[in-house]
Amino acid sequence: MSEFHSKIKTIEWVDNYSKMVDQTLVPYEFKYVNIKTGDEMFDAIKTMIVRGAPAIGVAGAHGVVLYAQELAEENLSRDEFVRALLEKADYMAGARPTAVNLMWAVKKQKEIIKNSKSDISGIVEELKENGIKLEKEDVEINKKIGDYGAEVVPRGASILTHCNAGALATVGYGTALGVVRSAFAKDPTIQVFADETRPRQQGARITTLELTMDGIPTTLITDGMCSYFMKKGMIDMVVVGADRIAANGDTANKIGTYTVAISAKYHNVPFYVAAPLSTIDTSIKTGDEIVIEERSREEVTHINGKIICAPEVNVINPGFDVTPHELITGIITEKGILRPDYRKSIADVFEKECALCTGL
Amino acid sequence: MSEFHSKIKTIEWVDNYSKMVDQTLVPYEFKYVNIKTGDEMFDAIKTMIVRGAPAIGVAGAHGVVLYAQELAEENLSRDEFVRALLEKADYMAGARPTAVNLMWAVKKQKEIIKNSKSDISGIVEELKENGIKLEKEDVEINKKIGDYGAEVVPRGASILTHCNAGALATVGYGTALGVVRSAFAKDPTIQVFADETRPRQQGARITTLELTMDGIPTTLITDGMCSYFMKKGMIDMVVVGADRIAANGDTANKIGTYTVAISAKYHNVPFYVAAPLSTIDTSIKTGDEIVIEERSREEVTHINGKIICAPEVNVINPGFDVTPHELITGIITEKGILRPDYRKSIADVFEKECALCTGL
Repeated sequence: MSEFHSKIKTIEWVDNYSKMVDQTLVPYEFKYVNIKTGDEMFDAIKTMIVRGAPAIGVAGAHGVVLYAQELAEENLSRDEFVRALLEKADYMAGARPTAVNLMWAVKKQKEIIKNSKSDISGIVEELKENGIKLEKEDVEINKKIGDYGAEVVPRGASILTHCNAGALATVGYGTALGVVRSAFAKDPTIQVFADETRPRQQGARITTLELTMDGIPTTLITDGMCSYFMKKGMIDMVVVGADRIAANGDTANKIGTYTVAISAKYHNVPFYVAAPLSTIDTSIKTGDEIVIEERSREEVTHINGKIICAPEVNVINPGFDVTPHELITGIITEKGILRPDYRKSIADVFEKECALCTGL
Repeated sequence: MSEFHSKIKTIEWVDNYSKMVDQTLVPYEFKYVNIKTGDEMFDAIKTMIVRGAPAIGVAGAHGVVLYAQELAEENLSRDEFVRALLEKADYMAGARPTAVNLMWAVKKQKEIIKNSKSDISGIVEELKENGIKLEKEDVEINKKIGDYGAEVVPRGASILTHCNAGALATVGYGTALGVVRSAFAKDPTIQVFADETRPRQQGARITTLELTMDGIPTTLITDGMCSYFMKKGMIDMVVVGADRIAANGDTANKIGTYTVAISAKYHNVPFYVAAPLSTIDTSIKTGDEIVIEERSREEVTHINGKIICAPEVNVINPGFDVTPHELITGIITEKGILRPDYRKSIADVFEKECALCTGL
């Protein structure tokens, strides 16, 4: 049985560039691309060559290193370099608006740019080190999320997931699929139902590939089917990833997640979100403040390059929706499972983190 | 503005064969096929060349005529002919198990076979006349459904529909889309949101074609998006068709309908079913008794002939789900809108029908 998640690295810094799986080709081809400039990274994030909130966080951090390398060649003064790089970093953070991990990782790089005492080449070196550090930490964090999550997976459970919050949505292992992997390691009788996840079909294309390669029994269903299987008692829990979580627990995730959450509530099926603390944006009070990315009409009207509808039809294509906190049973993080009242449990975990950071 | 529904006849008896639109090709091609034998009709129903509960009812009735024509060539005694034809009729009724209209229309033909006083060629003639009568009645019934339904469509409403319960699901005009057409005739400010309806994409392929050809503003969305738009207040009502309605109002319709109904309830959006009385099966008490057809894995794993997932994945592909009566605001029929308690309103309408039939 091949272990997909230990063989594949979604994104990795190599020498002076970022190497990543081109996820637009999965499962038809499994090809790595080398991203060598900041602009190439911006496009890779925007066109979803790299996708998944934690993975695009690391991609953003790498992207800032790439811009730094380019600007370091330009004979700028240190001040000019810092000013230009901070601008480029802000541009990178805007490649996709919903997942907060991108902004979070770019912010981490901006703090280095602002606070460094080094010369230009020293700043580049520090950014590179931090980019690699974020990359390594991501896998460790996911394994912790997986282990905490596995504790709430009933023996022999059927777990429904939406989209792909797996190894390919992160540097490795995955968040929601990290929970599945850790649970499967303890109990090989569990199984997964994977939503196709139209329009981009990350569930069909990526989740089924990851899980079948790891030997985890997986059933592909279309997005409308979840309620049918819940009613039949064939789904014991739902676990999904997240792109941004507000201070009250409202969670933005791939479009269609909210529909699954409503159905889970109706059928009394526990609904969990699995995400690192870096996905929680305590600067916003509720999900109403989360910007929802609108994507191109072609994602809906075409599949594999072929039109599937009348060409004159209108399309609205929101990339994400917000699941309100009252539909969420728990938020599985690397520091344990947060429970309602989320306003309190989220504040508590950040207070503790903050205390650790500052050594109080 | 072309009027799709008045130009197109989904299925029509011509001379001694049945002519129909090949719906597997829509919207890529618009081609008629001539079905000249009973076995061809069985396959046309099974492979969804013709689909939609009312349309396959008429197709089944035509299919019995085709078998009758074939058996009439075989030099059988009248008794042998009747016995063989009743067997063929039962076979035809089994082409698809969920939509009751097929069984209902075949049963109408069987009554003629059993009760006719004519010779073989006379029976064939009576079956043909009845097949044509059912075909004509279907359009009239749909227009009545449309007119009753239009009364509950608010001015300027956005109407969400799932799958295709349009002209191409019937002989013409449509049930759910009949409601849309009648409402649009009175109020051109209404608009439609059409669910794609995976796996077979009847919403994307057929509903968007029908409605844009009729000049009705239509927005295509993926199946998971309905809740997003309901939460935003962008959906004022849902109207769907039906494949079988139990005596208590539980309604089988295309897979994914139940998910939409749960979401509509959660957002307090009225959810209507539009169907002829022939879709109501008073012989079953609840939806639990409705047989749900399971269809091939390829419908889920492939789109336009191309695989969209890991080839080893499991698939379960139920063609329909059952929406429980408590999620249904009203059932729009050719005799008016039935309201809860459906056990009573359904019993009442059939009692009235029965009284009219028998002249009491």
